[in-house]
Amino acid sequence: MPLPERLLISKIARAAGLASERSRKQKLSRKFNARPITGIGDDCAVLRATAETNLLVTTDFSLEGTHFRREWHPPESVGHRCLARGLSDIGAMGGEPLTAFLSLALPPKIPQQWVDRFFRGLLKLAREFGVSLAGGDTAQSESGVLADIIVIGAVPKGRAVLRSGAKPGDRIYVTGALGGSAATLNLLFSKRKKLDPKTFPRHFFPMPRIRVGTVLRKNKIPSAMIDISDGLSTDLSHICEMSGVGAEIWPQAIPLAKIGKPAAPVELKFALHGGDDYELLFTAPRNTRVPREINGVTLTCIGEIVHGGRMLLVDESGSRAILKPQGWEHFR
Amino acid sequence: MPLPERLLISKIARAAGLASERSRKQKLSRKFNARPITGIGDDCAVLRATAETNLLVTTDFSLEGTHFRREWHPPESVGHRCLARGLSDIGAMGGEPLTAFLSLALPPKIPQQWVDRFFRGLLKLAREFGVSLAGGDTAQSESGVLADIIVIGAVPKGRAVLRSGAKPGDRIYVTGALGGSAATLNLLFSKRKKLDPKTFPRHFFPMPRIRVGTVLRKNKIPSAMIDISDGLSTDLSHICEMSGVGAEIWPQAIPLAKIGKPAAPVELKFALHGGDDYELLFTAPRNTRVPREINGVTLTCIGEIVHGGRMLLVDESGSRAILKPQGWEHFR
Repeated sequence: MPLPERLLISKIARAAGLASERSRKQKLSRKFNARPITGIGDDCAVLRATAETNLLVTTDFSLEGTHFRREWHPPESVGHRCLARGLSDIGAMGGEPLTAFLSLALPPKIPQQWVDRFFRGLLKLAREFGVSLAGGDTAQSESGVLADIIVIGAVPKGRAVLRSGAKPGDRIYVTGALGGSAATLNLLFSKRKKLDPKTFPRHFFPMPRIRVGTVLRKNKIPSAMIDISDGLSTDLSHICEMSGVGAEIWPQAIPLAKIGKPAAPVELKFALHGGDDYELLFTAPRNTRVPREINGVTLTCIGEIVHGGRMLLVDESGSRAILKPQGWEHFR
Repeated sequence: MPLPERLLISKIARAAGLASERSRKQKLSRKFNARPITGIGDDCAVLRATAETNLLVTTDFSLEGTHFRREWHPPESVGHRCLARGLSDIGAMGGEPLTAFLSLALPPKIPQQWVDRFFRGLLKLAREFGVSLAGGDTAQSESGVLADIIVIGAVPKGRAVLRSGAKPGDRIYVTGALGGSAATLNLLFSKRKKLDPKTFPRHFFPMPRIRVGTVLRKNKIPSAMIDISDGLSTDLSHICEMSGVGAEIWPQAIPLAKIGKPAAPVELKFALHGGDDYELLFTAPRNTRVPREINGVTLTCIGEIVHGGRMLLVDESGSRAILKPQGWEHFR
């Protein structure tokens, strides 16, 4: 059995750190510096790059069976979600996406029409954010469709918003509303039938919060930021761990997504632990003015950062319960 | 059925070209320019990057069942070959590799020891070329081990060696010897048993020709270059297609790899069509002085570029036969 994901990642980070330490002497190159600023373990790797600009690099798998099902997800949705995962990671650093690369392995019997529609979904989203698809790899898959998206973005030097900057007293914010994607997935699982993507857009066609992320960064609002891809409880635990802090979350303050027709709010558990929302989770010092809305997307305060490493749910009556990271973690 | 790989790639390139045309206005950014110089379809994408440096980006799958088998390939070999694929693409542009990213999906039951040994092989090769592993993704795989390596490299501005520069009259060269990897694979298939990696190093631990590639580029020797990953006949056809030329290959001049114990030369068919050699194939104007050896690696002239689009085998007696691209192409 392999290690759980976060142990595996920290193990890789240690081994890779040793390798890059030893090779530090070289690291070119004629005004382009590829040395990583952050180690492995943020939404993106941050490369020094030029005197004015840091580069952001992120890679994200979209694997049939793990991240989508061909019987549930139309090909346009699979292509859109594939790129959205990468764009969202760039947004979570306050960066602007520049260019994307795609490795795509296809089973021999997949219809070309599926592939065309996959690219239609992916390239439509790429155009929306002015991102070019500049290369990649193709291969034959012995199982399902396997995609890996690589997005390169940029951020002014030293301005990438990391997971590690949260301080006790900071307020915790989320964009939009949570739980819509996981509640939709739950419907798909329980009904075992197709849903109309138009009625459940946040699951089938999530919009990465690039513009909100850059406005926040330009206004120096966030002390730490991450995107909610694995679920609020898990992604918040990453901020807590990297910042060496704890958190208190006010469950009644969490904005619940509304899904279906007529639209009804999702259960709290989906908002607390459901993944694939691609909203932003960030912290800001208590006295920072945080707008209620940026670019039509609401920002909601849902708790505060505290000393210690624990995450707690604190309700209106003041009763407290431990909040465990129960979002989606691979290998578990 | 999806299209054959090269049709699929040109279709993607057209669709992606449209997308990037439309988004051309933006393309940032504070002294870093991510606009691609080449379209999709060379060993790497070339990004403008800075005033002095172009960036190279390549992505390559290593999929269990397609690119390796766990029963044949020790984990160190799988990790080494995974990174070697990416490094070789950087070398084929005359570039220097800087940093790597890895997306890795693992089946739930794989032993952690396998994963540790995979990273040992990958990071040993990374150290050898001063490359850092700066990030990536992990996921659960429902089938076998799935790896996607991303390598970013650099080359002085405008100096990347493309596939498209070959001219009639140019001589065709290869580094090292060909067919060793495919002949080893053939042994593995026919004997259906393990082979000792030490006796077959070029298959299990191929060394990408980075240093040869940079020396060639610095001395402005190659007019076009590619690495031999799909087989000489297929990779030569890429140069011919992108350059709008044909080629005559002298079969008796092709350096045959020697494999096994005692070492014996492989059959010509493996050298002509066998993939995974990771040698360089390049063209140079007829009057260019090409050294016989660079960094201990021999360079051999194996034919010449001609007008028209055909590839021919021309033997010592002068008899001519059509050379079809019969190397490894996915989806066929």
